[in-house]
Amino acid sequence: MAEELEVGEPLILVSNRGPAQFTVGESGSIEMRRGAGGLVTALSGLTRQLPDECVWVCSAMTDTDIEVARQHEGKPIDLEDGDRWVRVRMVVSEAEAYQRFYSVIANPLLWFLQHDLWNLSRAPNITADIRAAFEDGYLAVNRHFAEVVAEEVERAGGSATVMLHDYHFYLVAPGVRERCPGAFLHHFVHIPWPQPDSWRILPADMRERLVRGLLANDVVAFHTEHDARNFLFTCRQLLDLPVDFDALTVTVDERTVAARWYPISLDVEGFEVLAGSPEVLAYEERLNNSRREFLILRVDRADLSKNILRGFMAFDRMLDLHPDLAGRVTFLALVQPSRGDVDEYADYAERIRRLVADINLKHGHTEWQPVALHFEDNYLQAVAAYRLYDALLVNPVFDGMNLVAKEGPLANRRGGVLILSEHAGAHHELGAFALTVHPFDIDQQADALYEALTMDPQRRQDLHRACVDVVRENDLTKWFRAQLGDISTLRSRS
Amino acid sequence: MAEELEVGEPLILVSNRGPAQFTVGESGSIEMRRGAGGLVTALSGLTRQLPDECVWVCSAMTDTDIEVARQHEGKPIDLEDGDRWVRVRMVVSEAEAYQRFYSVIANPLLWFLQHDLWNLSRAPNITADIRAAFEDGYLAVNRHFAEVVAEEVERAGGSATVMLHDYHFYLVAPGVRERCPGAFLHHFVHIPWPQPDSWRILPADMRERLVRGLLANDVVAFHTEHDARNFLFTCRQLLDLPVDFDALTVTVDERTVAARWYPISLDVEGFEVLAGSPEVLAYEERLNNSRREFLILRVDRADLSKNILRGFMAFDRMLDLHPDLAGRVTFLALVQPSRGDVDEYADYAERIRRLVADINLKHGHTEWQPVALHFEDNYLQAVAAYRLYDALLVNPVFDGMNLVAKEGPLANRRGGVLILSEHAGAHHELGAFALTVHPFDIDQQADALYEALTMDPQRRQDLHRACVDVVRENDLTKWFRAQLGDISTLRSRS
Repeated sequence: MAEELEVGEPLILVSNRGPAQFTVGESGSIEMRRGAGGLVTALSGLTRQLPDECVWVCSAMTDTDIEVARQHEGKPIDLEDGDRWVRVRMVVSEAEAYQRFYSVIANPLLWFLQHDLWNLSRAPNITADIRAAFEDGYLAVNRHFAEVVAEEVERAGGSATVMLHDYHFYLVAPGVRERCPGAFLHHFVHIPWPQPDSWRILPADMRERLVRGLLANDVVAFHTEHDARNFLFTCRQLLDLPVDFDALTVTVDERTVAARWYPISLDVEGFEVLAGSPEVLAYEERLNNSRREFLILRVDRADLSKNILRGFMAFDRMLDLHPDLAGRVTFLALVQPSRGDVDEYADYAERIRRLVADINLKHGHTEWQPVALHFEDNYLQAVAAYRLYDALLVNPVFDGMNLVAKEGPLANRRGGVLILSEHAGAHHELGAFALTVHPFDIDQQADALYEALTMDPQRRQDLHRACVDVVRENDLTKWFRAQLGDISTLRSRS
Repeated sequence: MAEELEVGEPLILVSNRGPAQFTVGESGSIEMRRGAGGLVTALSGLTRQLPDECVWVCSAMTDTDIEVARQHEGKPIDLEDGDRWVRVRMVVSEAEAYQRFYSVIANPLLWFLQHDLWNLSRAPNITADIRAAFEDGYLAVNRHFAEVVAEEVERAGGSATVMLHDYHFYLVAPGVRERCPGAFLHHFVHIPWPQPDSWRILPADMRERLVRGLLANDVVAFHTEHDARNFLFTCRQLLDLPVDFDALTVTVDERTVAARWYPISLDVEGFEVLAGSPEVLAYEERLNNSRREFLILRVDRADLSKNILRGFMAFDRMLDLHPDLAGRVTFLALVQPSRGDVDEYADYAERIRRLVADINLKHGHTEWQPVALHFEDNYLQAVAAYRLYDALLVNPVFDGMNLVAKEGPLANRRGGVLILSEHAGAHHELGAFALTVHPFDIDQQADALYEALTMDPQRRQDLHRACVDVVRENDLTKWFRAQLGDISTLRSRS
């Protein structure tokens, strides 16, 4: 286990999903389980290394979360997490406000905008309902979080480092700054930051308020330099603010805000323990029993940004071009259902199912189905599949980082080849050791799949080894230490 | 009539549509009619002022065009156009190459990309067919045009100014430059130039070849400063070329290429003659007989970029909010059918029809249909309608310039109010004298429609007068003269 990280002063983490969710067990007792999602997994890996005075502020998501939060009357709760404690402050939002915050503004409006997923001739339509959701949902929940965070800063003596996470909370910082001028505010955006014209999908008042909200921080952080520069460029074009592209800063209200980038990675040690766990090995054995000569794998949330359809089109094309592969390859797609209540997502899932059926009908026979599509949420099975792939397809349309591209190589035991979209944040670190694909280019992806399966064994091993080295080197502790280092430098300057 | 423009040396205009199309008349004789489209109208207005040694190179579009072109064996044809002659060189492309050039690459691929219209989770799919269309269609037609243009430069003695127009011809300049180093090459892009990340929809080799093709010119021109800067930014980000954002230049292969902007406008004199013609006045009388108290007008090609659906949604919303307008207002939509062979366009037209039917059913009654939708190509009727509107809705999602926003006020006789999208190129000139709308904001557009109909008469007249003054001041001759002036300056420098 890594040594404890030196934070220097009280730390307040803020993310929508927290490290734990509560449910009522069969016996009627309250049970806790670890929160889901890549960001929570990453931050949970961190908290094991953080000092005890760290507090994690998050949304109460379930009815039982709300009950537990109310029992503690707005104070942090100490939760046991393995051999450590983590202090959690769960924020109870009014139900309708939360729904509008989450299901109208954060997803889909901001998610779609930042991943360039809107079909602009038809959507979005900014209506009075959207504006109401922005004011009474997004802004209201953000203000409430700002109050809670300010309380925690004050509880810590008025000086603390606040680390806000992701697109749910662009409007939290202004309220915290106003109440707690001694706090250092840091916001990490985990999804792509598009160029300024993409923000013009929102009316001027909305887009300007979002950017100004972020500018109430001392640092706005991203996974890639490209995103950080796009953010500064947005400040200049949309708000007409002075930007220094060498120092990577923007000046607003006589304050200097730094844009920074830190590519997020894995808790390597924790992940490797999991990847070698009996549960994973049991899944591995089961998957291995049904494998053919070659296994192509993809692991994704069923999100429009993940480019699942074009991946199957490329596989179809590869089978057209290389009929000798018939019966010898399986494309295993582990797809976690997502946002089924949003029309676009339900439609996308249906299109995926139909395309897979078409491909299996076209190329398969009673003894062989070329695509195995699992629409389920089973992380342990995914990690088991990582161990077995010959080719891992990670071809997102646009993606802030994509941790599948890091987990896969770290777990893989076959010198499997990573096929990686040039539009994934992870491409900056891993592109040199992967087969790079352009996410819209079907034939190029088909060629990459074939190349991965037929590559010289030594080259496969070399590429795989290089990927693993990068992931091990750039682990989560390094990611976090780099942020703390910059915070310390910036604090001492001001 | 304006005096003849001083060009200084032979001029070769290049655009896909030319100033005339030929058809076989009822008697079997070959008949000529003027070409359609905003660009052709504008350039035709110009040619009346150009010296005789100007040649216009364009595509032979119809079977009769091809026949006429072949009769002239690759030489220019002198056509009578009113009181002047225009020399036209029609280029005959191989039919399949032309189809791929026009219907696969230029429209939809480049048009959709540059107007941000792709629904990226589903399209485009860059396949072997698309790549073949790029090589054997777009590039082949462009190379053929380059040869024809080079012939015309040589016929003119080796020194000429070549003015290439629009997104059909990004790959013409390299071939001309190679054969004719004495030519000055100028390319005008009439549609938006998006920011660099939008170009990442195309694989690196395709996007880089397109940009490098444009960079074989001496000047790349746009309608707005924003587009010109986006172009330079694209050169820097995608090709890593040195850019000077103060001088607005980019250096490539030891040459300096200038990005410039010149907002296109109307042939004011020609347009006013047309707007007062008996044909237009006859249409005006007919339209006026059926008008209610208020007339809202839109005039557009049925293009996905024109935002026709949201305009009707806004009208629906206005009627919801202001039931007192029932029976008193008509929304006349003159929509020119377009690209019905492209699925997205056929679907868009169908959605428009259904939405209009829904609105008429919801708000209308036997004595009053709130929306009058005309799906037809009738320019004279559109000009007649310009004379009559109280509010002209021009709300494109994204638009290079939009000449409806200029024609409308110039023809209007009622102090009508212009409602103009902040994303139309015309907004830079006319935004201050229009009601600015955000194209995605339905409620704001509804409010703007109501404000336009209920505005204080003096303010209406003042705004209208200001729009007319701008359009008159910035007329087509000024647009062209500015380009010739810059060309002369840049030529003398090199």
